[in-house]
Amino acid sequence: MDAPLVAFPIIVEIPVRWGDMDAFGHVNNTVFFRFFESARIEYLRAIAFVGGGEAVGPILASTHCRFRRPVRFPDTVRVGARTTAVAEDRFTMEYRLVSLALGEVAAEGGGVVVSYDYGTARKAPLPAPVRERIVALGVGGAEDAA
Amino acid sequence: MDAPLVAFPIIVEIPVRWGDMDAFGHVNNTVFFRFFESARIEYLRAIAFVGGGEAVGPILASTHCRFRRPVRFPDTVRVGARTTAVAEDRFTMEYRLVSLALGEVAAEGGGVVVSYDYGTARKAPLPAPVRERIVALGVGGAEDAA
Amino acid sequence: MDAPLVAFPIIVEIPVRWGDMDAFGHVNNTVFFRFFESARIEYLRAIAFVGGGEAVGPILASTHCRFRRPVRFPDTVRVGARTTAVAEDRFTMEYRLVSLALGEVAAEGGGVVVSYDYGTARKAPLPAPVRERIVALGVGGAEDAA
Amino acid sequence: MDAPLVAFPIIVEIPVRWGDMDAFGHVNNTVFFRFFESARIEYLRAIAFVGGGEAVGPILASTHCRFRRPVRFPDTVRVGARTTAVAEDRFTMEYRLVSLALGEVAAEGGGVVVSYDYGTARKAPLPAPVRERIVALGVGGAEDAA
Repeated sequence: MDAPLVAFPIIVEIPVRWGDMDAFGHVNNTVFFRFFESARIEYLRAIAFVGGGEAVGPILASTHCRFRRPVRFPDTVRVGARTTAVAEDRFTMEYRLVSLALGEVAAEGGGVVVSYDYGTARKAPLPAPVRERIVALGVGGAEDAA
Repeated sequence: MDAPLVAFPIIVEIPVRWGDMDAFGHVNNTVFFRFFESARIEYLRAIAFVGGGEAVGPILASTHCRFRRPVRFPDTVRVGARTTAVAEDRFTMEYRLVSLALGEVAAEGGGVVVSYDYGTARKAPLPAPVRERIVALGVGGAEDAA
Repeated sequence: MDAPLVAFPIIVEIPVRWGDMDAFGHVNNTVFFRFFESARIEYLRAIAFVGGGEAVGPILASTHCRFRRPVRFPDTVRVGARTTAVAEDRFTMEYRLVSLALGEVAAEGGGVVVSYDYGTARKAPLPAPVRERIVALGVGGAEDAA
Repeated sequence: MDAPLVAFPIIVEIPVRWGDMDAFGHVNNTVFFRFFESARIEYLRAIAFVGGGEAVGPILASTHCRFRRPVRFPDTVRVGARTTAVAEDRFTMEYRLVSLALGEVAAEGGGVVVSYDYGTARKAPLPAPVRERIVALGVGGAEDAA
């Protein structure tokens, strides 16, 4: 069941909560972005780029999701996160979500994370150590995305 | 302030709730999709395509958002929704979100809504009256999107 | 329709979002606490007791809700907030929620807000100006609660 | 760490999501009710009283929470649920939430679940098999609640 996530350096496992479902009886579309966020936060912690009091931190510039299968409670999802491209002041992430109950990929998505100087309120180059840790975790993989 | 929304047939006004903000102190990314959802639901009601007990209803196949400006409480947002393309069994929507406090577009996005037969669990052609109502509300506009 | 809220110095009006509903098809119980929170935040702003960088701010010690009627989208709720008792380092609030679609009280609740010194991480006396503003808004009313 | 939950027949373990935190930087008060809901749903599944298409199902009549310690991401909470009293058409539940990171009880609460006939839209006696399963799981314990 983890084959779809084998290329993802960060994988988080998240139990679906009953309240994640909406009036259609399946997990609401906004919750998939919450799941992606959980994987992104874990990735950002892994590269020690978490913002907060620091001058330069991450900001989400865009994100998207393609819903392949409806997910329902009870279930547990595994969400993989990886970086597919790095630029001067940003990097592009890909997310893949596997439903353990369905045994298959239920959603795929991605996002662009920009390096932001909270002091000057402007984009800033990615700190060199952050970039190094991104590279160390592996960059690429978009070519095998569905 | 409504100039950016003048081409949108459906506009919903939504007060930001304090709890929409996350630990970064601005409206969480997932909430923008909730705002888009509110506009989409209003649009679906306007074209009388709301699913429920009916055999054929809408299902969200994909969605995306580009965040232009952080939004904070207190604020009220206006979200426009329109259709930019219609196909046999789906239509493509565009959303634009204006922050009244900022006086400008804070986010833009879109999504694909698929016509789904909940009885057979398969895609289905858009019901003719639904398609007519979509056309009546106006199709197009992507060319002037940012 | 505002008669039930006539004794409440703070009233917020909140449109129900479609996504506030859960798989039972009515507004989820947690969302009523979000509605109460919106009224509480407005009240705290009115008495200029909002925490943040300040040394002493509010912290919610307990809260409760009694659900009288299910609420569904589309609807708009009005939530009243008032203080029914003040002590050295805390005050007790009451909330009342009216559904405009139902034309009646749909939920009632309350909570205890404690004055907290975020510097020393201990309870602290309510700042005198805050207490004065609470008194100015009116204290009491529990006797006429249902 | 499980000592506080030893008397609870139902215990659910829930990882805190980063997005559960609010602008104060700790898990938002409404999320504690989501955690309680998750434990309640598990309890209702254990007694096979889950509503849905069935004529008689549960409805939450009231709920409350006392917040003892702020919870932050990253953390995992364990939530115990038990019934402390049963009446003709309702039962009273108690919830206790332990933060694994803090190693102590972070919140306590409870609620009243009413048996509701969705066909006639009225309260209804608890179905006998449901009552038997509640009794089998154990009723009582409020005396040792804090």
